[in-house]
Amino acid sequence: MSYDLIVIGGGPAGYWAARRASDENLRTLLIEKKSIGGTCLNEGCIPSKVLLNSAKLFTSVKEGAKFGVVADNVKFEPETVIERKNRIVKKLSGGILNQLKSRGTEIIYGKAKIIGKMDGVFELTVNDTVVRGKNLLIATGSKPKIPVIDGIMEGLENGYVLTNSEFLDLKSLPASLVILGAGAVGLETASYYSMLGCKVTVLEMSDRIALNTGRGFAENLMKIFRKKGIDFYFNSSILNISHDSITFYSNGREYVLHPDYVLLCTGRTPVVDELGIENIGLTPEKDGIKIDETCQTNISRVYAAGDVTGGSMLAHTAFRQADVCVNNILGKKDVMRYDNIPYVIYSCPEIAGVGETEESAAGKGINYEKHTLSLQYSGRFVAENESGFELCEILVDKNSRRLIGVHIAGSYVSEIYMVQL
Amino acid sequence: MSYDLIVIGGGPAGYWAARRASDENLRTLLIEKKSIGGTCLNEGCIPSKVLLNSAKLFTSVKEGAKFGVVADNVKFEPETVIERKNRIVKKLSGGILNQLKSRGTEIIYGKAKIIGKMDGVFELTVNDTVVRGKNLLIATGSKPKIPVIDGIMEGLENGYVLTNSEFLDLKSLPASLVILGAGAVGLETASYYSMLGCKVTVLEMSDRIALNTGRGFAENLMKIFRKKGIDFYFNSSILNISHDSITFYSNGREYVLHPDYVLLCTGRTPVVDELGIENIGLTPEKDGIKIDETCQTNISRVYAAGDVTGGSMLAHTAFRQADVCVNNILGKKDVMRYDNIPYVIYSCPEIAGVGETEESAAGKGINYEKHTLSLQYSGRFVAENESGFELCEILVDKNSRRLIGVHIAGSYVSEIYMVQL
Repeated sequence: MSYDLIVIGGGPAGYWAARRASDENLRTLLIEKKSIGGTCLNEGCIPSKVLLNSAKLFTSVKEGAKFGVVADNVKFEPETVIERKNRIVKKLSGGILNQLKSRGTEIIYGKAKIIGKMDGVFELTVNDTVVRGKNLLIATGSKPKIPVIDGIMEGLENGYVLTNSEFLDLKSLPASLVILGAGAVGLETASYYSMLGCKVTVLEMSDRIALNTGRGFAENLMKIFRKKGIDFYFNSSILNISHDSITFYSNGREYVLHPDYVLLCTGRTPVVDELGIENIGLTPEKDGIKIDETCQTNISRVYAAGDVTGGSMLAHTAFRQADVCVNNILGKKDVMRYDNIPYVIYSCPEIAGVGETEESAAGKGINYEKHTLSLQYSGRFVAENESGFELCEILVDKNSRRLIGVHIAGSYVSEIYMVQL
Repeated sequence: MSYDLIVIGGGPAGYWAARRASDENLRTLLIEKKSIGGTCLNEGCIPSKVLLNSAKLFTSVKEGAKFGVVADNVKFEPETVIERKNRIVKKLSGGILNQLKSRGTEIIYGKAKIIGKMDGVFELTVNDTVVRGKNLLIATGSKPKIPVIDGIMEGLENGYVLTNSEFLDLKSLPASLVILGAGAVGLETASYYSMLGCKVTVLEMSDRIALNTGRGFAENLMKIFRKKGIDFYFNSSILNISHDSITFYSNGREYVLHPDYVLLCTGRTPVVDELGIENIGLTPEKDGIKIDETCQTNISRVYAAGDVTGGSMLAHTAFRQADVCVNNILGKKDVMRYDNIPYVIYSCPEIAGVGETEESAAGKGINYEKHTLSLQYSGRFVAENESGFELCEILVDKNSRRLIGVHIAGSYVSEIYMVQL
């Protein structure tokens, strides 16, 4: 007997595909090596939101006098926050499990290995058991990218260098941190610790923060983060990390800092090793498994979705890819589009956007105009904010008069930002 | 010389129409008797949001321990909140004024009176000056409806009975309140004072709260508000109000309460008196000025928009009606639709919805099904909330499978709720 679909990996792409497939009466097996929910739920977006929510509340209380709310001895208790985070992760993970079980999805915990294809059916081993499936979905996700830096492996070993797998569980507050990387994870992490009074320095190898937002916007954004006390070094390259220091160049000058920890927010790399994909003729590539617009690999009936495909490493991209996979398995034509995927950074201020940036528009030869608006036009925004830490940039195609890009920063902009372009 | 358009009233309908008309190069005069911004900005949505925002922060701090944020001696300072509210109203009002001035809109402060029509041009007086306009937009708004109750006029005079014109400015916190009316304003006001520790009792003449939400939803909502300590009496009729008490019947029993104040949240009535509309043949009706789908009255080139038209007394309805007026004046065909106007109540929890309720769907003979969902499906909601005070109801047309109504209650649901039906 063989499954209609075997899904490897229980993150957003995997659990959503398994759920959808079960709903459509495909006999579905989900193989997960650790815990259902993937990076997003266990070590990414959800933990980060729980932590940031508490840090934002802490900041609101400290600044409460402006709003007529005063209090003494305002304290942040990281242990409570981490415990709450763990409880929420467990609850949400349990929720996903229940949804799968109630649909009859079979789940095996263990490490999957593809061993080959026999009579048109794929064969895998999990915990020494052989399972067979007519369709295969590889949704093994990603892991932190470890940059090549002198002393980094020792740092990871002795706990001076932390990835998101560890720093989301820090139960005591460090006095100072160096964060490598000024992307979404770097900015969220910098916001969190900075709000709690920790001295945060961010080292970025490119010349700006938040690469997905466009240059002018990113530069204004950086001014906001600097005002909040976060230091940035650009065009930086790390010379080495010792047991209590980090030495780096930035714009030609050498610096040495002695933070309590060094946090790695240097991006993620697809998990393709030890999976046996070569046994069915699939070549592992460095930047992920290549798929076509139906999310199929170059092997018929072998699909891939989520972070393992490289490119847009976002949970909502993964959900949509999972839908596309299942629809195509069912014979319903469906294709994945990547041109208007919104992004959110849950930093303080929050950042959200979709569509073209100034560079991408210019790169495509679009004759665009940029409008800079104030969020002060929104009565509710004014009612709820005193800081003025806000940006709003809108790009319009001059020829078609169509809106082609929006980028916003400010309290709760991730929620006001739901309009389809 | 005559104006292309004279707008009477500088609230959402009036200022938006004046702004749009000026943008379109119509020579426009705006007449406002008090302050630009109307009820929404001066005595409604915006003040209410400022006050509720502070009360929500106060509550978050008091319940902060769950989120790892602790503080001593948490205090609410109503004076600071009222001052901040006044500052914000002034700022937003100034912003609207600047937008009008930069467009060349002329503004006269004073009471407008329509005196007639001469050679196809409308004549009005403002402060004893005569002004003339080819088109007229009546956007005079609404005022609190004062129910006929023994002792109410004395109460309003001696300050025991307050309308929103007064209770948004209370600088000391009452210990107990009776609120008449369980609509949007009643629930927002009840939430505000209840969060600050005031004993709140709401008297409602119908048999439920939040009439726009549907019966089952409203009943669950009421349970949430009761858990928060707010008392409700339904099918109530007020016998009389003395200098320190209110006597009423509810479901056949008589009650006497001695609150610090009685607040009127009993709806609003259009402002049509002393306007002289009869001088151009327009008959004032009790429930507002009647308009057609182009927002024109039964007199050619006399338009009306906003609360003065009765019906949907919401700022966003007014903005849209203003657009329709200006487009029709410009000869661009445009019609007003009222079938999918979303509503928001900024109470705690917030309530938002759009489309059919169970009753309205049943009334139209729609074969619908109701789905009750949990907001716990949203990771962010779980990350930011511990209370469980949430509801989500979705109505689907069984025949077409179209979504026909959504009603949600919970923290920040007014912002997640932006999808077009």
